[in-house]
Amino acid sequence: MKVSLVTNILQANERIAEQNKRLFDEKGILAINIMSAPGAGKTTLIEQTIRTLKNEYRIAVIEGDIQSTHDADKIAATGVPVVQINTGGACHLDGNMISQTFDQFNFDAMDLLIIENVGNLVCPAEFNVGEDFKVMLLSVPEGDDKPMKYPLMFYESSALLINKIDLLPYVDCSIEKIRTESWQINPDLAIFEISAKQGEGVDAWLDWLKIKINEKANSK
Amino acid sequence: MKVSLVTNILQANERIAEQNKRLFDEKGILAINIMSAPGAGKTTLIEQTIRTLKNEYRIAVIEGDIQSTHDADKIAATGVPVVQINTGGACHLDGNMISQTFDQFNFDAMDLLIIENVGNLVCPAEFNVGEDFKVMLLSVPEGDDKPMKYPLMFYESSALLINKIDLLPYVDCSIEKIRTESWQINPDLAIFEISAKQGEGVDAWLDWLKIKINEKANSK
Repeated sequence: MKVSLVTNILQANERIAEQNKRLFDEKGILAINIMSAPGAGKTTLIEQTIRTLKNEYRIAVIEGDIQSTHDADKIAATGVPVVQINTGGACHLDGNMISQTFDQFNFDAMDLLIIENVGNLVCPAEFNVGEDFKVMLLSVPEGDDKPMKYPLMFYESSALLINKIDLLPYVDCSIEKIRTESWQINPDLAIFEISAKQGEGVDAWLDWLKIKINEKANSK
Repeated sequence: MKVSLVTNILQANERIAEQNKRLFDEKGILAINIMSAPGAGKTTLIEQTIRTLKNEYRIAVIEGDIQSTHDADKIAATGVPVVQINTGGACHLDGNMISQTFDQFNFDAMDLLIIENVGNLVCPAEFNVGEDFKVMLLSVPEGDDKPMKYPLMFYESSALLINKIDLLPYVDCSIEKIRTESWQINPDLAIFEISAKQGEGVDAWLDWLKIKINEKANSK
């Protein structure tokens, strides 16, 4: 009874997520769903990504938070369209929340839609929102035991950004262990080591992302 | 319909949590529920707490993780009884999971039961498990915007431990901002600044905790 109810919720979400995906496909928009624990650096990464790519691509952002418009305010300062979703307690974004923002965007003038999920290493991985793929951040102060403790997010993601590598001298964290154990869970995972704050390693991520944006635009 | 179902789940949990609480009260055991984002340092804090208090008090631990026995193995090395709960996907502990461990403990030889929740700054705050009070950790690399973004956990907790203060020189984080905004949400919150890894500030936390253990033992 409880299990079938959960299945129904996930199925209903999947249906809406597919509708969202169909719209993005028709318009040739790459949609990415960015997930991490709280404070791993999603917003800073998104700011960096926008600042470098905004002259080349038309970008928009959906910000997911339980409450506050803190992150949307930061993104708005970069000059791209942004909509804040306040989930009011819910621990993840779902397909319906995303589709509720659609009347605030012009999808004929968009190449890349960045969706920043609620900070949570567990629940967001269970809900598709219509994205082309999921990206996760793991920051080195969180430690190197996270792949084995939170495997679903590593399994569901296409790219893992190991962030805050500028803090490596001050914390106990083996990048090698994260790489090895992440690939045991998901051998196809693209892994980047970055400092979103200081810019180190961000170029490799942006090169990878640009290929995906171009592929999507050409698939229309 | 959906809301009443969620209400029913929370009510059913509350009933079991109250049964757990009654047992702890009968035995004069202080039960604390420790919560934080992934990698904020819960396990290191618990290890430090046990090492300092274990000659004075009889301590037991329940470890909650989605999967793996990584944390329970660390705690077992301190020599106190520990039971690992693997939630198998669930993003928080609930009262029923806690009561399932009871046949593995001797409650007549226990002063303090430490429950380490799943690493998640959202969902665990919604579920009582029978604890006397909740304790949360926030690590400084997560940033100083967390009270306003994740208010429920600050509201529900009796103590906030601001951890990893040894990293303050290398990150953008104002302890003052965390204090002010936490007290706006919860004026009764006891706040401690600590480095669980290096030991700084841990004594004040332990002095506070010892008062609570003694109060509970005397209330029997």
